[in-house]
Amino acid sequence: MTGTKQSNQMWGGRFASGPDAVMEEINASIDFDRKLYAQDIAGSRAHAAMLHKQKILSAADYQAIDNGLLTVLREIEDGQFTFSRALEDIHMNIEARLAELIGAPAGRLHTARSRNDQVAVDFRLWVKQTALETAGQIRTLITQLLKRAEEHADTLMPGFTHLQTAQPVTFGHHLMAYVEMFGRDLSRIQDTIARMDESPLGAAALAGTGFDTDRFMTAQALGFREPTRNSIDSVSDRDFALEFLSAAAICAMHLSRMAEEIVIWSTPQFGFVQLSDAFSTGSSIMPQKKNPDAAELVRAKGGRINGALITLLTVMKGLPLSYSKDMQEDKEAVFDASATLELMLAAMSGMTGDMHINKAAMKAAAGSGYSTATDLADWLVREGGLPFREAHHITGRAVALAEKKRCSLSDLTLKDLQAVHPAITEDVFDVLTVEKSVASRKSYGGAAPQEVRRQIDFWKKRLAKNRNAA
Amino acid sequence: MTGTKQSNQMWGGRFASGPDAVMEEINASIDFDRKLYAQDIAGSRAHAAMLHKQKILSAADYQAIDNGLLTVLREIEDGQFTFSRALEDIHMNIEARLAELIGAPAGRLHTARSRNDQVAVDFRLWVKQTALETAGQIRTLITQLLKRAEEHADTLMPGFTHLQTAQPVTFGHHLMAYVEMFGRDLSRIQDTIARMDESPLGAAALAGTGFDTDRFMTAQALGFREPTRNSIDSVSDRDFALEFLSAAAICAMHLSRMAEEIVIWSTPQFGFVQLSDAFSTGSSIMPQKKNPDAAELVRAKGGRINGALITLLTVMKGLPLSYSKDMQEDKEAVFDASATLELMLAAMSGMTGDMHINKAAMKAAAGSGYSTATDLADWLVREGGLPFREAHHITGRAVALAEKKRCSLSDLTLKDLQAVHPAITEDVFDVLTVEKSVASRKSYGGAAPQEVRRQIDFWKKRLAKNRNAA
Amino acid sequence: MTGTKQSNQMWGGRFASGPDAVMEEINASIDFDRKLYAQDIAGSRAHAAMLHKQKILSAADYQAIDNGLLTVLREIEDGQFTFSRALEDIHMNIEARLAELIGAPAGRLHTARSRNDQVAVDFRLWVKQTALETAGQIRTLITQLLKRAEEHADTLMPGFTHLQTAQPVTFGHHLMAYVEMFGRDLSRIQDTIARMDESPLGAAALAGTGFDTDRFMTAQALGFREPTRNSIDSVSDRDFALEFLSAAAICAMHLSRMAEEIVIWSTPQFGFVQLSDAFSTGSSIMPQKKNPDAAELVRAKGGRINGALITLLTVMKGLPLSYSKDMQEDKEAVFDASATLELMLAAMSGMTGDMHINKAAMKAAAGSGYSTATDLADWLVREGGLPFREAHHITGRAVALAEKKRCSLSDLTLKDLQAVHPAITEDVFDVLTVEKSVASRKSYGGAAPQEVRRQIDFWKKRLAKNRNAA
Amino acid sequence: MTGTKQSNQMWGGRFASGPDAVMEEINASIDFDRKLYAQDIAGSRAHAAMLHKQKILSAADYQAIDNGLLTVLREIEDGQFTFSRALEDIHMNIEARLAELIGAPAGRLHTARSRNDQVAVDFRLWVKQTALETAGQIRTLITQLLKRAEEHADTLMPGFTHLQTAQPVTFGHHLMAYVEMFGRDLSRIQDTIARMDESPLGAAALAGTGFDTDRFMTAQALGFREPTRNSIDSVSDRDFALEFLSAAAICAMHLSRMAEEIVIWSTPQFGFVQLSDAFSTGSSIMPQKKNPDAAELVRAKGGRINGALITLLTVMKGLPLSYSKDMQEDKEAVFDASATLELMLAAMSGMTGDMHINKAAMKAAAGSGYSTATDLADWLVREGGLPFREAHHITGRAVALAEKKRCSLSDLTLKDLQAVHPAITEDVFDVLTVEKSVASRKSYGGAAPQEVRRQIDFWKKRLAKNRNAA
Repeated sequence: MTGTKQSNQMWGGRFASGPDAVMEEINASIDFDRKLYAQDIAGSRAHAAMLHKQKILSAADYQAIDNGLLTVLREIEDGQFTFSRALEDIHMNIEARLAELIGAPAGRLHTARSRNDQVAVDFRLWVKQTALETAGQIRTLITQLLKRAEEHADTLMPGFTHLQTAQPVTFGHHLMAYVEMFGRDLSRIQDTIARMDESPLGAAALAGTGFDTDRFMTAQALGFREPTRNSIDSVSDRDFALEFLSAAAICAMHLSRMAEEIVIWSTPQFGFVQLSDAFSTGSSIMPQKKNPDAAELVRAKGGRINGALITLLTVMKGLPLSYSKDMQEDKEAVFDASATLELMLAAMSGMTGDMHINKAAMKAAAGSGYSTATDLADWLVREGGLPFREAHHITGRAVALAEKKRCSLSDLTLKDLQAVHPAITEDVFDVLTVEKSVASRKSYGGAAPQEVRRQIDFWKKRLAKNRNAA
Repeated sequence: MTGTKQSNQMWGGRFASGPDAVMEEINASIDFDRKLYAQDIAGSRAHAAMLHKQKILSAADYQAIDNGLLTVLREIEDGQFTFSRALEDIHMNIEARLAELIGAPAGRLHTARSRNDQVAVDFRLWVKQTALETAGQIRTLITQLLKRAEEHADTLMPGFTHLQTAQPVTFGHHLMAYVEMFGRDLSRIQDTIARMDESPLGAAALAGTGFDTDRFMTAQALGFREPTRNSIDSVSDRDFALEFLSAAAICAMHLSRMAEEIVIWSTPQFGFVQLSDAFSTGSSIMPQKKNPDAAELVRAKGGRINGALITLLTVMKGLPLSYSKDMQEDKEAVFDASATLELMLAAMSGMTGDMHINKAAMKAAAGSGYSTATDLADWLVREGGLPFREAHHITGRAVALAEKKRCSLSDLTLKDLQAVHPAITEDVFDVLTVEKSVASRKSYGGAAPQEVRRQIDFWKKRLAKNRNAA
Repeated sequence: MTGTKQSNQMWGGRFASGPDAVMEEINASIDFDRKLYAQDIAGSRAHAAMLHKQKILSAADYQAIDNGLLTVLREIEDGQFTFSRALEDIHMNIEARLAELIGAPAGRLHTARSRNDQVAVDFRLWVKQTALETAGQIRTLITQLLKRAEEHADTLMPGFTHLQTAQPVTFGHHLMAYVEMFGRDLSRIQDTIARMDESPLGAAALAGTGFDTDRFMTAQALGFREPTRNSIDSVSDRDFALEFLSAAAICAMHLSRMAEEIVIWSTPQFGFVQLSDAFSTGSSIMPQKKNPDAAELVRAKGGRINGALITLLTVMKGLPLSYSKDMQEDKEAVFDASATLELMLAAMSGMTGDMHINKAAMKAAAGSGYSTATDLADWLVREGGLPFREAHHITGRAVALAEKKRCSLSDLTLKDLQAVHPAITEDVFDVLTVEKSVASRKSYGGAAPQEVRRQIDFWKKRLAKNRNAA
Repeated sequence: MTGTKQSNQMWGGRFASGPDAVMEEINASIDFDRKLYAQDIAGSRAHAAMLHKQKILSAADYQAIDNGLLTVLREIEDGQFTFSRALEDIHMNIEARLAELIGAPAGRLHTARSRNDQVAVDFRLWVKQTALETAGQIRTLITQLLKRAEEHADTLMPGFTHLQTAQPVTFGHHLMAYVEMFGRDLSRIQDTIARMDESPLGAAALAGTGFDTDRFMTAQALGFREPTRNSIDSVSDRDFALEFLSAAAICAMHLSRMAEEIVIWSTPQFGFVQLSDAFSTGSSIMPQKKNPDAAELVRAKGGRINGALITLLTVMKGLPLSYSKDMQEDKEAVFDASATLELMLAAMSGMTGDMHINKAAMKAAAGSGYSTATDLADWLVREGGLPFREAHHITGRAVALAEKKRCSLSDLTLKDLQAVHPAITEDVFDVLTVEKSVASRKSYGGAAPQEVRRQIDFWKKRLAKNRNAA
């Protein structure tokens, strides 16, 4: 078999026989690491340019290699490249094709490097690129949430604790809570990018090299801030992948919360929002159904990212230095998590962008459940001079009375209220409506529309600055 | 767009517009659930046969449907089938093609069922089949380990605790520990199969149906023991997948332990075993390397199964009944875990089958590290009548003396030993060699070769019985 | 320091200095493994009785040991025992106290065993006992759900898919879905118990022993089915803990689903149920709140069991045989998961036992959302002879009409319906009410009250049988 | 029962009956959140001072409250405080005691806040403090590793890939790989601290308050950079805990790798290092054993942190805003993970601080396994002008020859080497010794002692700067 022969040659002259089918299946990574082709070629080009500058590679060889690599790149992008499992991985697939194209000089490319630093630099480039794209998607989502929050800075809705009506807020205020979450996600992803921004290329197998290389040059060519500082760590480290996964898991958790809310709000019982047809599906058996499938899938898909995180944490547990083959299990987890998060962010942007808001239902709910009871208690503290704990008890009695009368707090008569506590005056009705309650929440970060608008402005500025920065 | 139109028709007349690209991307499952085509067709055939028997479907329609389904099956298996994302999933892809092939009667197949019970039965059939294959692979691995244990029932090796030499055992005895682990895995998988052996088909959307169906008939036709007992649970349950994943995770953990041992034993420092060339690889930079890649990958891949388990546990957390779209995230986790475990088991069978055992290195190591110290302590108890705790102290002194003299315990002179404790006699040397030590471990389950052979016989019989049973 | 000295003696004469504070902190397990005191004493008593029967221990020594152990047991149960960290673990704490009480014979107890098999048997006894108690709790919960399902076999409620009203069912039918889930949990736990029912005692350090022991005798005395078959596996195995954890994680997931439903059903928007005051809490700031805290905590606590499962799977990953100290990390995860599951089951039994069911709200919701649309489609198939797919489309048009007229399907006039499809007759109204719809779902496992009652009877019988069996 | 009565009063007048035992057990958090007493009191003092400054609280009341809180603090720290489960949590325990101490004014403390923002600020303060301590511990470990790396900058050892000898490095170089890892951990923890450095106090229940509060003042008093920007997010967010857990999990993974190496290096087969007696333990049955228990426990304990991370990710999945009681499950996971990481870092600092390095064993191993084969290949490239791939093949033949002759590469004669390739000259022996090989690895980050010393200097400076910064 040609494949086996090629493969043997790749490993050198020491092996009597080639890997059998199981071995090829478990060992070959080309089925997934082909995704790194562009990074691998970029890394090789940077390496060859450096070898040339350092006079390790002749001008002619360098030109041949560089042109050859560009040809391979084109072949892959045009779908003309035949990937071979016998050649194990993307590195060997590309190098073998390069050898076909340019002959002997191809054999000089691997001078002063190893597959260990090669895969480290390829994967790091990929994760960095993905993280940058994730950051972009998060910015897009924040931008859109700001727009909708602005539209709904005055839209009354119940604020929930324990999924019970607690105090009235506005829909804009509620959306701004998600802006904070996604804002932290953005910041986390950017810290991750900054921390991984070091090039491992040139660490070679694990010990560095005796050739007079210039790792700063390759680092710069590949867009890294600087080269890594220790060659053993360079080939042993997968922190950049783990940190991306944990940032992704936290972001996915935020998305799952928003998705859960959309599912609940879409029930006929709540009726707060309606997803557009574009983000709903029907039923194969129940003709009347309109299901929030996209929201359910966003809610679920975080599970996958938690899984990917545990996968890689488990893989890395207890691995002796430096490179072990176990580390080949890093890629699929990250590829899947990255694609999953991309889809979740896109779907959430899509859903929230054209989701219909049922203001009437939200407002009605905001007024039910004695949502202004805290306002009554606060009034008793502020105007009646009562300690909060006592005011809280008195308000409890007012709520009990309203429950008995099956009315809202603002529908109780002054006499009713004075029976509960004599200090209550006509003025109390100024705080018992939902509108008044919300308008009063002017503390920093509070639900009052003017405060919500201030939050929106803050984020618009921060985002503008962030966009320029990154 | 035709796809959208088809899709709309599938959902009924209520939708004004089709899903956009993101929605299709997140919602369509055909890219992975096509793997269920055979199960889906088997389920539909069983359902149609039942509808016919119950006089819900005419003979002509039934024949058209059944023949049509067989045609679709052939098309898929011949690679002639065009899967469409607009048709979302395997169920709709098949039904749409059936409609093209046979026209109107195709529309009668979905009577008295829903996609909810359809996917439940498809996936359950798939998981059951996979679990049966896993059981077969585990039996193969056990059989091979029994063979190698028999070859090495007398091969001395150090028994380790804390990776320190503890007491001598035999390689056969060590392998039998893994036979016990894989034996439990086999039993766990078989319990899982028994528990999932109920057919959800006929639960329809979630409430059962008003048609006079016979769920026992479809259950039997599909090889299930019986139908499920509650229609809501039938479409809400993914326990069968979770239980398979947790059995797989435990089995993978066992494999990771064996793999770790192979990695350590393959070091030049241990030198206990050598993987065949077929299961080793070389280095792209270091010509002298022979790496235990297959073992490393087996050690790592359990991480993926832990990840899949966490994925599905997270997905199912807090899902209200009955079916939610979140549950579509069940398949890829199980598909990946199943393929991963299959590969791990195959690779471990491959590696252990032709792994070279370096008996001399094992024996030499078995004799180092004062591995028979316990035998000296036990001798002092048995022959000297000392309490074990005292014997333990005296032996500690003998070890210290041997360390000082840089010799083994059996190389100490009788005078040396009597200086440690006067009760020691010439007879003590009968227990201080590795061979004698191992031979003495005749307690049930112990390391003595005759006992190891008894364990091997036990498992041969159990396995023969198991093979007939399942 | 006395502690250090004791400790040194325990380790034998080889150590020049004792562990420092960090070492004691990380190494000592007495803070948690004291929970195993009863198991440890039972194991030691069984071991001593066996040593005596086998003539390894004299009658006098055996009596001293056995009485001494009973004294220690009493001291611990009376709170008179002083646990010492310097003595590391429960085994050494008990043995040291035994030595104080009875002197020299205490030193003979550890003959033919090791801490490795001792902790294995202690922990296995504990996990088995816990699993039996869990099984009992699950039976209690099932029993109660059966009772409530019986009360509500006719109580109409909406059946949901995607949390959207799908088809009407009964509350009893819905509860029976949980009975199926908990029934599988019970069966899983019982399989787990059966698989762990082997005694590792007598495996000694890892290799068995040269003393003529009778492991069947100790196995029987401790209530195990038989002794384990391989001594290395006996001290290396923690499958019993992992399998318990995975069964617990699946059960906890079921509880999280029920808890989520209770949280949603308790909202004013749904209003389906109300937890009793005993299982609700108030707010420190909002006097009107009544929060389903117990349900929320049950929903959350499954996270902890997933965590414990991952903890132990990670700990065991890649551990070489036989015993490694890593395995000491098995206990706290299991103790916490066991206590957590116990509390979750108790809380769920409590909540569901006295939860108020708001039949009117459930019934009203069951009738909304065109929940009988499937019945119309099925009628068109059955009576009109239409293919289901066509009937599905026609029904979609009827739903659209009803939406436009803001009425339910059963409120449409015959003329309205005939405009949608001419085949529709007066008879159709027989299937369009919620009551008729539910009553018609007579397929095996379906929502019809008579079928729900059959399911209840099945489980009463199965449970009665199970109770006698275990 | 007094407890119930107190409890009822706490919840307001709406509840007819108190929680029963199960409810108290599941609901009360005082058993673990008492750990937050200092943070809770600090938060209350800052809140009271602010209420006073804003004229919401009179000077007299403020003084009474502040003095009362200081009394409570002293009582708790002196062990004089009686915690009550009926009072649920640390907040209510402290407030109730305050009421006993100072009467009515205590009831004014809860003005303009809620338990929701109170627990958020308490827990955030605790996590921030813990993270600062973790950062300190990591700095200590790095400092010590730098010291040992400096001692061993020239100590030869084999560099491993796949746990096979690859190329010689120095022990100092190897340790510097861990310095890079822990350096990233430090940076990650510090980013986490910066991101959580916002005070949620004053968000009240979820909507902010109508009182004229000054959240900047309380933020500053508690050492936070600024107040949080959105009140709903303030009480819903647990990112700070999750981010700490993920940073801890990655750090624990690094520790597990180092621990695994110590376990392997401590085997008689490797014999590279020996832990001091203070960090080793003996065996209860095998007198000769010296076990690396501390390293094994460090290796294992990462499992627990992975578990804690999954616990909290699972708890937070799909939680609707704002506060839900599920979030009470955040604390124990973080408390356990924090204590675990603290212990792991302390144990690793202890072990590596006085671990004996067996230079002779390391050097001998560095020279075995043809570890300078790459140097031969590189020589052929550099001096012979061969392409690397060809040089790699030729070297493979030289290794095969040395294997046949059972000698090292540097023991082959020139004639032997010239038979493999005629271009080889006497000069080649300059690169075939271990010392020369290491000395040649002068590339940035490479193994050459001078380069290792440069790395050490870099870190000393960075650490000095970091120490001043934080």
